[in-house]
Amino acid sequence: MSDSTNRDALGAPGELVPLAARRLGLHTQREDVAIVHRDCSVARSEGLSGRSRVELRANRKRAVARLYQVDNGMVAPDSIGLSESAWHKLRLDEGEGVTLHHARDTGSMRALRGKVYGHRLSQRDASAIFRDIVDGKLSDVQIAAFVAALASHAPERTEITALTHAMVAIGERLSWPGEVVVDKHCVGGLPGNRTTPIVVSIVAAAGLTIPKTSSRAITSPAGTADTVETMTRVDLGVKDMRRVVEQEGGCLVWGGGIDLSPADDLLIRVEHELELDCTSQMVASVLSKKIAAGSTHVLIDVPVGPTAKVRSRADADELAMFMRGVGEAFGLTVRTVMSDGLQPVGDGIGPALEARDVLAVLENDPHAPQELRTRALGLAAAVLEMGGACATGSGIGAATAILDEGRALAKFMAICEAQGGFRRPGIAPFTKVIESERPGHVADIDNRRLARLAKLAGAPQAPTAGVALHVNLGDGISRGQPLLTLHGESRGELDYAIDYYQTNTNLIEVRAK
Amino acid sequence: MSDSTNRDALGAPGELVPLAARRLGLHTQREDVAIVHRDCSVARSEGLSGRSRVELRANRKRAVARLYQVDNGMVAPDSIGLSESAWHKLRLDEGEGVTLHHARDTGSMRALRGKVYGHRLSQRDASAIFRDIVDGKLSDVQIAAFVAALASHAPERTEITALTHAMVAIGERLSWPGEVVVDKHCVGGLPGNRTTPIVVSIVAAAGLTIPKTSSRAITSPAGTADTVETMTRVDLGVKDMRRVVEQEGGCLVWGGGIDLSPADDLLIRVEHELELDCTSQMVASVLSKKIAAGSTHVLIDVPVGPTAKVRSRADADELAMFMRGVGEAFGLTVRTVMSDGLQPVGDGIGPALEARDVLAVLENDPHAPQELRTRALGLAAAVLEMGGACATGSGIGAATAILDEGRALAKFMAICEAQGGFRRPGIAPFTKVIESERPGHVADIDNRRLARLAKLAGAPQAPTAGVALHVNLGDGISRGQPLLTLHGESRGELDYAIDYYQTNTNLIEVRAK
Repeated sequence: MSDSTNRDALGAPGELVPLAARRLGLHTQREDVAIVHRDCSVARSEGLSGRSRVELRANRKRAVARLYQVDNGMVAPDSIGLSESAWHKLRLDEGEGVTLHHARDTGSMRALRGKVYGHRLSQRDASAIFRDIVDGKLSDVQIAAFVAALASHAPERTEITALTHAMVAIGERLSWPGEVVVDKHCVGGLPGNRTTPIVVSIVAAAGLTIPKTSSRAITSPAGTADTVETMTRVDLGVKDMRRVVEQEGGCLVWGGGIDLSPADDLLIRVEHELELDCTSQMVASVLSKKIAAGSTHVLIDVPVGPTAKVRSRADADELAMFMRGVGEAFGLTVRTVMSDGLQPVGDGIGPALEARDVLAVLENDPHAPQELRTRALGLAAAVLEMGGACATGSGIGAATAILDEGRALAKFMAICEAQGGFRRPGIAPFTKVIESERPGHVADIDNRRLARLAKLAGAPQAPTAGVALHVNLGDGISRGQPLLTLHGESRGELDYAIDYYQTNTNLIEVRAK
Repeated sequence: MSDSTNRDALGAPGELVPLAARRLGLHTQREDVAIVHRDCSVARSEGLSGRSRVELRANRKRAVARLYQVDNGMVAPDSIGLSESAWHKLRLDEGEGVTLHHARDTGSMRALRGKVYGHRLSQRDASAIFRDIVDGKLSDVQIAAFVAALASHAPERTEITALTHAMVAIGERLSWPGEVVVDKHCVGGLPGNRTTPIVVSIVAAAGLTIPKTSSRAITSPAGTADTVETMTRVDLGVKDMRRVVEQEGGCLVWGGGIDLSPADDLLIRVEHELELDCTSQMVASVLSKKIAAGSTHVLIDVPVGPTAKVRSRADADELAMFMRGVGEAFGLTVRTVMSDGLQPVGDGIGPALEARDVLAVLENDPHAPQELRTRALGLAAAVLEMGGACATGSGIGAATAILDEGRALAKFMAICEAQGGFRRPGIAPFTKVIESERPGHVADIDNRRLARLAKLAGAPQAPTAGVALHVNLGDGISRGQPLLTLHGESRGELDYAIDYYQTNTNLIEVRAK
C-alpha cells in the first residue's frame, strides 16, 4: 500500500499547500521533530493533527518527524518549526516551503512484525529494515520493537549473517593493500580496559596492517576514541585515515568519522535506553564494522564476570560461536579470547586517566598498571600470531620485546603525529581521595557502579574527570588507606560523585579479615 | 540501585538549583517533554545534557520527561520549558522552581527485560510495569519493547491473568446492585459493525443490567463512543453513569470518562504505532475493562476474515480460549461468538453515517441494513440467554419481539435522554458518488483500505464524514452503478479521499462475470 499512499499523498490538492519552514534550534538527539500551530489548516485538513508522525518534504528530500502542536506564538499557523536534524536533512533555508504528508507504512514494518511473531529475517527483510532505520522512516518506538523482538527469539547464524550483510551494505567500506588486515575488538563492560592503543602500537610496529576504528562511550565513562582524543585527533575522515594507515601501518581513529555502520549506531542508541543485550545484534554490530573496515583477521576479547557485559562462561561461549560462524560466512577469520572480567584493568577510569595508564605502559614506567600491560601483551601476541607476523607460541616474546625496546611507544607517537600531533592528557582541577573506613581486604569491586561513579564525576564529557582506583581485589587494607581518588572538572560534579559514593560505599567492599 | 540513585539525586548540591518553569503550550500527545538551553549550567553540571530522559520534580510531584535542548531564546539558560502534560502533572505556575534529576532505572525495567528473555511475568512484575507506565516512568521506547516482547512469546493463561489483575488494580472499579451484570464486546476490525447501541437497547429493555462503556476510534474511522456521540452525550463521569444505569438498566458512555483501565489506554497508543496485535495484551485489555466495569457475564463477538482484526479461525479459537480461561479466574462468565468478517456490516462507515444505520434498525425502517439488524439480534439473543432473561433457544424470539414492537427504540431514546438528550446525527456538506467503471459482480471488499478511505475523508474527527457503501459481496453490478458515496466536511478532505480511491479502485473489486 505504501506506493499508492505515496502517490495519493503527492497528488491530493491539500497536500500542495506548503508551510513556511522555521528553524527552532532544537536539538533532539535522535528523532526529527516538527511543530505546527494547533490552528494549522494544512495539518487539520489533512487529518494529521491527531497523528504522532508525519512525512515532511522539501527540496526533493524527505524526513519522517514526530509531530507536536503549540497553541501559542512559537510557530505561526502558516509555518512549521523544525528540529536541527530535520532542518539539515531537508537542506532548508528560513521560510522555505515544506509540505506535510501522511507517514507511509514502510514495507519493513511487515518484516518487523514477522520478526515479532518469530519468523526468521530474510536478507531482503534485514536490508529493508536497516535501510528504513537509516532513512529515518522507522520511529524509535518501532526500532525498539525490532530490538526487543530480536532479543526475544533465539539467535540463529543465517539470520545474523543477513543482519550483518545489511549493515555492511549501508555504510562505507574500506579496502587495503596486502592480503592480511588485522583488528581487535573488546566486547566491553570492563572499566579502564584500555588495551587497544597499546595493542595497535605493538602490532603496527611489527609491520602488520591494523586500521583501528573505535567508538566513543555510549554507556561507559570512556570509549577508546575518548581516551585517544586526550592525546591526539581522532575525528579523521576516510582519506586521512587511509594516509595514516599507509604511512604507519595502523591508526587509532573514531569510527563515527568513518561511518562504517550508520544503521548500527542508531540501533545502539535505542538499545541503550532499553539496556538490552541482544546477541544477534551484538554479533552483527561488531562484525559489520570489521568487515566494512576491510579486516581479514579479528581477535575478539570477551571479558567475563558477574558485573561485566558478558556475565557467564556459557554466554561467552555462545557469543564466540556466533562470532566465528558468521565471520566465516564473510571469509573473516575470527578468534575469541575470554578474559577475567572481575575487576577494572587499569588504575584510571575516564578518558585522560585511562590515557595516562596507556602512556605509562608504553613508556615502561615501573608504576604502570601491570594488569593492563599483561593483558595488552597477551592480546598483541595473539594478533601477531593470527596475522602471521610470528610463529604460533612466539607471539608473547615478540610483543614483549617490541614494548620493552620502546618500539611500541615510538609507533604510538608516530601514529599520533600522523593523526595531528601528540599532547599529554590533562589533569582535573578538583580531586578527592576516598579512604577506607575499616581495615580488611578488598572482597568485591562493582564494575557497574564504579563506572557510574566515574560518569557522575563528569566522564566522558569532561575528559580529565573520572576515578583513579588504588586497590585491587584481594589487597589487604588498613583503616584510612586510600581506595580511590575522584577527579572532576567542576566542583558540582565532584560533590555529586562524592555524594553517590557515600550512599554506595560498598561498591568497593572491604571485608574484615 | 534505583533508591541510592534517587537519594543521591536529592542530596547532591547541584541538584538543588531549581530552574524556572516556562509553559511552552506544547501538545505532545504522549510523552512529557522538557526543553533546556544548551548553556543550562544545571543540566551540564549534572551531566544530563547528553541524556535523553530526565526526572523533573516540583511541588512534591515527579515526571519523567524527554529532554531536548535549544541554542536560542525559546528557553533561557536558567529556565526549563515544559510540555502541557508535564506542566499539569507537576501542577506548575509560570516561573516556579523545577529541579532536574537523573531518571532512575525503575524496578520494572528488570521485569521487562526478563520478559524479553522469555521469563513469565509474575503478578508482582506485571503490577510494577503497569504502575510505571501509568506514572510515566517508562518511555514509549520501553513500552514498545514490552509490547513486542509480549507478542514475541506464546501467550499463557496465568501470565495473562497477572496482566489483567494489574490493569484492574490501577483504574476505577464499579459495582452494581443485583447478581447479574451483562456486557458485550466486539474485537473489532470490521467497519460499520455498530451493533452495540442496538444490543444494549434490546437487553436493557428486557430488564437486564448492561452498563456499557465504549472506546473512541484509535485506528478505525469510528468507535462506538464516536457514533453514539452524534446522537447524545457520552462523556459522563462515574456518578452520572451510575444514575443512568440505575434509571434505565443500561448506558452507552465513553470509557475514557470512567478511567477503567488507564494503563491499557497508554499501551494501546504504542501498539497502534507498531500495528501489532498481541493476544496476551488484547485479552488482558478487554477483560480488565469488563471486570473493572463490574460485569458478571460477557459476550465477545469475534469477526473473522482475511482483512478483519482476527484473520483465521485458528487465531479466533485461541483468542476465545484465553478469554474464557482468564475470565474464569475472575469469576467472569465469558462466551464468544465468531462472526463473518468478510465485509462491512452496516452501509455507513464513520460516526454519523453509522448512527443513521443504527437508528434505521431501531426504527424498523424497511431500508435499514438487514445484516446489521440480523447480527444485532443474534448478539442480543445470546446476551439475553446468558443473563437468564429467557430460556436457552428462546433468545432470538424475545430479542426480535423487543425490536419489532419498538421497545428497543423507546429504551434507546430513554437512555439518550438520561445521558443528556437525543439529537439526530448530521449530514456532511460535501459528498461524491463513486460509480463502477465496469459491469460485473462484487468479488472482494478490502475492509482495511475502506476504513482508510473513510478516515481520509475526515472520520472520526469530522463526525459526519466517511463512506456510505451501496453494495455487498456478490452483488451484480452494471457499469456506472454507484458503489459508494464519500462524505466530507471540508472540500480538501473529500478531494483527498477521492484521490486515494482513484489509486485504490480495487478496494471494491468488481470482476467481470
